[in-house]
Amino acid sequence: MAEPVYRRMAVIGCGLIGSSVIRAARAAGAVSEIAVADASEEARERISALGLAEEVHADPAQAAAGADLIVFATPVMAMGAAAQAAAPAMTPGVTVTDVGSVKAAVAEMLGAAVPAGVHVIPGHPIAGTEQSGPDAGFAELFQNRWIILTPRADGDAEYQAATARLTAFWTALGANVEEMDERHHDLVLAVTSHLPHLIAYNIVGTAADLEEVTQAEVMKYSAGGFRDFTRIAASDPTMWRDVFLSNREAVLEILGRFTEDLQALSRAIRWGEGDRLFELFSRTREIRRGIISAGQESAEPNFGRDRGKH
Amino acid sequence: MAEPVYRRMAVIGCGLIGSSVIRAARAAGAVSEIAVADASEEARERISALGLAEEVHADPAQAAAGADLIVFATPVMAMGAAAQAAAPAMTPGVTVTDVGSVKAAVAEMLGAAVPAGVHVIPGHPIAGTEQSGPDAGFAELFQNRWIILTPRADGDAEYQAATARLTAFWTALGANVEEMDERHHDLVLAVTSHLPHLIAYNIVGTAADLEEVTQAEVMKYSAGGFRDFTRIAASDPTMWRDVFLSNREAVLEILGRFTEDLQALSRAIRWGEGDRLFELFSRTREIRRGIISAGQESAEPNFGRDRGKH
Repeated sequence: MAEPVYRRMAVIGCGLIGSSVIRAARAAGAVSEIAVADASEEARERISALGLAEEVHADPAQAAAGADLIVFATPVMAMGAAAQAAAPAMTPGVTVTDVGSVKAAVAEMLGAAVPAGVHVIPGHPIAGTEQSGPDAGFAELFQNRWIILTPRADGDAEYQAATARLTAFWTALGANVEEMDERHHDLVLAVTSHLPHLIAYNIVGTAADLEEVTQAEVMKYSAGGFRDFTRIAASDPTMWRDVFLSNREAVLEILGRFTEDLQALSRAIRWGEGDRLFELFSRTREIRRGIISAGQESAEPNFGRDRGKH
Repeated sequence: MAEPVYRRMAVIGCGLIGSSVIRAARAAGAVSEIAVADASEEARERISALGLAEEVHADPAQAAAGADLIVFATPVMAMGAAAQAAAPAMTPGVTVTDVGSVKAAVAEMLGAAVPAGVHVIPGHPIAGTEQSGPDAGFAELFQNRWIILTPRADGDAEYQAATARLTAFWTALGANVEEMDERHHDLVLAVTSHLPHLIAYNIVGTAADLEEVTQAEVMKYSAGGFRDFTRIAASDPTMWRDVFLSNREAVLEILGRFTEDLQALSRAIRWGEGDRLFELFSRTREIRRGIISAGQESAEPNFGRDRGKH
């Protein structure tokens, strides 16, 4: 096993992603010591029972004390307060990062909270499941997944070295690292993650509220396609509320595009424009092939969920 | 193995579903002899190479000759012509069914084509994958899935006996059978299958057409949720064009409900109404739990697609 990349990692907020970072870092030998802070007593009990960390605290400052890497993994809107609480324990040269799904708002919150000399390098692993809590994490979550870092463009040599070190950390965990402007990140993720979640939540809500079709029927006949949407619509409500509130502008812009396209599609159905439908439905096949080729999706039919059946 | 339910089954149109019916019927011993008709020469060659049927024809009438069960498994809009072509070979007492995703339109097409004394019992297996063609089928596809039959309400004793026999056939293939009014079927499936496909096609189209975000970025960062939608957006374009054209009314009605709800959600994001978002996102979790309990979905995170990673 290689040299540890950091001596002591503090993880503030230990749910699916926080606990996966811990498990993956431990498995890779990327850190020597791990301290956790979590605001929930129930979560702290699970973290202790799972033996995830050397230290488990309620107070972010106690976990952050002596750490050379501090990872904020709370819901996005809680990061400002968590960073403020941890700030007194941060010393110059320390790297502060996060795993939030929105980057511009988080960069602002973290930047405003930390003392001078601390390197804030926001980050976002494009990986996850619909489950949440410290029990849901696993060490392999980041393997062959992308981590987007949004370092400031005007960082000095020391800051750039800190960014290279954080890149080495994620690489040790099996991930591929990409750097991006934070505004562009928020737009790209509005497309590849935030809009899909919004649409999934919405369709599941629509189906649940119909009077003419019962919820029992919706569940029973969900294998026709609906069940696919329920996976991401089962994601953590607090996390996703925060994403939409803190990436409002990009989400509404992309949602506007989606709605325009949907109106055109609706019109094509109303007027029986079969060629137009066929053209769209043929084009969309290519995108999936590209995703499978990029190693970001299973090539098996039905996501492999019928594997046991064959 | 039990007694065969039918002596000779003719399958008209042999793609994913048609070839799965054949494989499942063969595995269950539900029929003694199988004849296939398919309009595509390429498909006929694959069907012969796979050894799926005793007879492989281009002409539906040749496959239907002597059959006591005729299953139409072409795209929905092609069923009328296929049934007209097969009609001369149909004798009184024969059961005609189909596997189309829309039932009112199909019932009308089949009813108009067949001679007197033939029992038309439309059907729809709520099962499938995003793949298509005779190679994509498998014998286990219908296990623990629902088959909806929409028999006419005024059928005589002979018709009711034919319906019971068709139910026994599907049960032998491992499926659960439910009877339903055809209009209600078309509304229920508009919710659980047609709208999900429409939304998935639309979001993949939107993502592909953006100028600010490249297709390469969409593919690379699709693990944030987008990739889930690409599965059903990779479904057969002809099949889905036909579904939207032949279930127009119900699809547009449900799409209207979806759009209203989406506008309300958009407004809640714009005005920062976090409580409203949280309330919806919490409710939608329950639906997935219900689907998993109903045995229609995998309980594993990420549809089990990370199974190899653990």
